[in-house]
Amino acid sequence: MKDKLYLMIPGPTPVPPAVTAAMSRPIIGHRSAEFAALIERVNEKLKKVFQTKNDVFVLASSGTGGMEAAVANVVNPGDKVITLNTGKFGERFGELARKYGAEVDEIKFVWGSSIDLQVVEEKLKADPTIKAVFATHNETSTGVVNDIKGLGNLVDQHRAVLVVDAISSMGGMDIRTDEWKVDIMVSGSQKAMMLPPGLAFVSVSPKAWNVIEQNKSPKYYFDLLKARKSLGKNNTPYTSPVSLYYGLEAALDMILDEGLENVFERHRLLAKATRAAVMGLGLELLPPLEYASDTVTAVKCPENVDVNNLRRTLLEKYRVMVAGGQAELKGKIFRIAHMGYASKADVLLTIGALEMALNECGYKAELGAGVREAQLVFLGERD
Amino acid sequence: MKDKLYLMIPGPTPVPPAVTAAMSRPIIGHRSAEFAALIERVNEKLKKVFQTKNDVFVLASSGTGGMEAAVANVVNPGDKVITLNTGKFGERFGELARKYGAEVDEIKFVWGSSIDLQVVEEKLKADPTIKAVFATHNETSTGVVNDIKGLGNLVDQHRAVLVVDAISSMGGMDIRTDEWKVDIMVSGSQKAMMLPPGLAFVSVSPKAWNVIEQNKSPKYYFDLLKARKSLGKNNTPYTSPVSLYYGLEAALDMILDEGLENVFERHRLLAKATRAAVMGLGLELLPPLEYASDTVTAVKCPENVDVNNLRRTLLEKYRVMVAGGQAELKGKIFRIAHMGYASKADVLLTIGALEMALNECGYKAELGAGVREAQLVFLGERD
Repeated sequence: MKDKLYLMIPGPTPVPPAVTAAMSRPIIGHRSAEFAALIERVNEKLKKVFQTKNDVFVLASSGTGGMEAAVANVVNPGDKVITLNTGKFGERFGELARKYGAEVDEIKFVWGSSIDLQVVEEKLKADPTIKAVFATHNETSTGVVNDIKGLGNLVDQHRAVLVVDAISSMGGMDIRTDEWKVDIMVSGSQKAMMLPPGLAFVSVSPKAWNVIEQNKSPKYYFDLLKARKSLGKNNTPYTSPVSLYYGLEAALDMILDEGLENVFERHRLLAKATRAAVMGLGLELLPPLEYASDTVTAVKCPENVDVNNLRRTLLEKYRVMVAGGQAELKGKIFRIAHMGYASKADVLLTIGALEMALNECGYKAELGAGVREAQLVFLGERD
Repeated sequence: MKDKLYLMIPGPTPVPPAVTAAMSRPIIGHRSAEFAALIERVNEKLKKVFQTKNDVFVLASSGTGGMEAAVANVVNPGDKVITLNTGKFGERFGELARKYGAEVDEIKFVWGSSIDLQVVEEKLKADPTIKAVFATHNETSTGVVNDIKGLGNLVDQHRAVLVVDAISSMGGMDIRTDEWKVDIMVSGSQKAMMLPPGLAFVSVSPKAWNVIEQNKSPKYYFDLLKARKSLGKNNTPYTSPVSLYYGLEAALDMILDEGLENVFERHRLLAKATRAAVMGLGLELLPPLEYASDTVTAVKCPENVDVNNLRRTLLEKYRVMVAGGQAELKGKIFRIAHMGYASKADVLLTIGALEMALNECGYKAELGAGVREAQLVFLGERD
């Protein structure tokens, strides 16, 4: 029964059978007319999920490749940029920008809290030469969702372009790329998009293209001007991962068939139930409720419980895999994902297993109490 | 999310990814040396699961085809046979035997109860010409497990051969074909054997061969003498379903790698937890505890609840599929399977969903109370 695993980590996430089936189709040439038609269809469908009228580029890389593409195409050496660090992935933008020679003003917020727009506003007003602001929509490491709508309205009043990492939220949460005035939106395949790892998605606004066209940073694989030229011919600069493209179209079809609003509502409900359940067991969420993500819930591990032991118990005894904390949160939190191909039953089984594992690791969780809280949410008996 | 389904019906059951992967291998010729080697390996592995030293024939049919093979090869027109009817599948043996011209003494037990060995003993003693006794090990329609060990010891003292349907228990429960003196043991692929429907398995004892060699009933596809002749050359009389054979070996490998005793213990534990859970919700089991199956639990539906409504709610709201009752039990019971590729998490999610669906269908089930009972079983806190 080793391959019977309930994968509740924030990526990679379970891949639906329809996507796996699509990926099993015979390989075709990546320069064929058939593949060009697939690229064109996928672009149109990605635009719907991204809620943008701009093209969405598909890169053969992990999500970090998409982040690097954004940085490499925007940042010239010496440019002043702001990176907003609300967790490990916000921090990554700072690392990337420094690699590309930017003068980085990295604003670190306490991990578990969200960005403070006022701080950003002051910085932007104080220095009109700031070239770009880098932010995380859904901080996978802390389960925090940041106010990108507010940030977009703010950055829009300045010269700076806004680059947002929505890797762990796109396809699960309502992300209005154009309405929120996000210039470069980055996502990845292996989270709420229900695909295996291997693809990054990047949308680019006209404002961002103006910056990109002036960019001199060294880049080759992640050159978005090349990508734009190719996409104009329904092509890609380098070899595309054909099978993942097949899967991508199948996953996009699933999302669009379910309906974006239904997908978002499903994620909202699963997150609400998960939060109610862990709180019902006396556990504390890492982020305040108002900034809690709809795709991943970060929970403070009780002091007397060893997180690794808890995760090992969940995995070995119940075949449920949840994530631990990263970097400074290592050992302090665990994270339950409810993104992509996730259902009410997944929440029930995860909480049921968690209740047992907590007891086995020294924390008195009332058996069934967390499940009951999740059930009450599903039954609509909790506002 | 339509293809996200938790299939908790007593067959077909979920197929493990390793089995699906095996079935995706390229087709080979069914008369090739490679396929002959596969037939030989599969026979040896099936013998271990059947706990027999006799060959186990693989038929390209559903389980009912295996039952028909047993009847067609044993029964001559006019033969006296006993069929033990403890449910829909025991009843089927009576239908089959009559089709083949047998003079059938069908002993019907109240559905939900098990066979009464004393009744069978009296019948056998009263009429030494009885040719065969047909029984069901695990009655899928009622969740009852019959005492085949006791029946085998009884029939063994007579001329009659014992034919047993273990379609929904083989691969999940401890079935000692030889030790229990079962002459023809029939099973199928789509239950605890973790395969798609399409294969039946039939083992035959020397005592049964003596009867089969004298048999004159019309049969062609299900002729076991032909099958024996072919299997002697690691072959089959007609075209074998190559992909299902691939899957069969993968499933047998999973069962043997986990270890038969571990597989049986897992099924015992899942069944015990499921029973504790439904009883904890105030529901009644159909069979008495001592005859309750380890692979499927039959539960009396509360009087004020419409079973179809309950099943529809489970399916549509929670994507959990359980079975209803069959024939005279239609509308009266529902059945939860925990066979094959099933885990603790499956029980937790099924009970969690059931609690909600019961409430939604007018039965006051205490939320979390059934889950808690299952958890206590899993934690070893219930004897």
